[in-house]
Amino acid sequence: MPLIQIDLNRGLFDTSHDAIGRAIHEAQVEVLGIPADDRFQVFRPHDPGELEFDPGYNGVNRRDMVLIQITAVRMYRPETKKALFGKIAKNLCALGIRTEDVHIALTENGLEDWYAGRV
Amino acid sequence: MPLIQIDLNRGLFDTSHDAIGRAIHEAQVEVLGIPADDRFQVFRPHDPGELEFDPGYNGVNRRDMVLIQITAVRMYRPETKKALFGKIAKNLCALGIRTEDVHIALTENGLEDWYAGRV
Amino acid sequence: MPLIQIDLNRGLFDTSHDAIGRAIHEAQVEVLGIPADDRFQVFRPHDPGELEFDPGYNGVNRRDMVLIQITAVRMYRPETKKALFGKIAKNLCALGIRTEDVHIALTENGLEDWYAGRV
Repeated sequence: MPLIQIDLNRGLFDTSHDAIGRAIHEAQVEVLGIPADDRFQVFRPHDPGELEFDPGYNGVNRRDMVLIQITAVRMYRPETKKALFGKIAKNLCALGIRTEDVHIALTENGLEDWYAGRV
Repeated sequence: MPLIQIDLNRGLFDTSHDAIGRAIHEAQVEVLGIPADDRFQVFRPHDPGELEFDPGYNGVNRRDMVLIQITAVRMYRPETKKALFGKIAKNLCALGIRTEDVHIALTENGLEDWYAGRV
Repeated sequence: MPLIQIDLNRGLFDTSHDAIGRAIHEAQVEVLGIPADDRFQVFRPHDPGELEFDPGYNGVNRRDMVLIQITAVRMYRPETKKALFGKIAKNLCALGIRTEDVHIALTENGLEDWYAGRV
């Protein structure tokens, strides 16, 4: 039951949120092996001044920030997470989103920390 | 010091955010035994396209998503969390919010991870 | 790679978000010793009714809520976190933001839980 939260510029949201949502979800299905119907995403479009980022941190030439927060059950190995992040960036790149502009943070919890429509 | 973040449709926010906030808070007071004045909630109303969810995941007939994120100190047992989620869903149901449309994710931290107006 | 998320009133955002962002970042650089270019912040301005808080919890006289969520790698000691929170509150106070109105929640993850523009 990963939960996906995406903070991005309003312009990018307006043109591409459907494709972005699908791209991220497909990466999860492929890399994590989650069911295709396990999709829960929140988009938060932002106006100028709301997204602050350094254009060069981590040796990267950054022009924008597409922030993806993933909340997932504690069960994936570091290699799997790395593969997921790489696949998300690759899928978004196919939509014209620069790999350098993608920023991902994952936070873990337990199976008992979820309610998905019923106990 | 649980922190509550609620992402929901703007229409539902406009008509019901006061009652939703109280319903969630009362469930916390009753099930977790937190003080009645330990209330910190952020509502984020959403426009069409911002909330993406699968209508059938987990064997549930879902029509909307009321996403509740709880950040709480690591101290509650799985049964307590389950009781909390059930009570929140029940309290929201009394407001006309379908139990199936409620989605909850809890994330834990430590007591030392909070600042509430003073060190 | 701490990620900073700030939920605040729209009025305060409009007048002060640049200064608030700098104030929080400078506290991180000074107390945590992170690089000056390790800055990633999301502001979420809120309209009336979206921020709910108790005016007296924790023995504090609260008039507003500036909610700061920090996602950081699990590596800081409790004293360091306490010093960070105190420094953030102090820096914000210099901008006219009441110390009592600052609310901070920190959540930890691992080094492998980040993607910052490249794998």
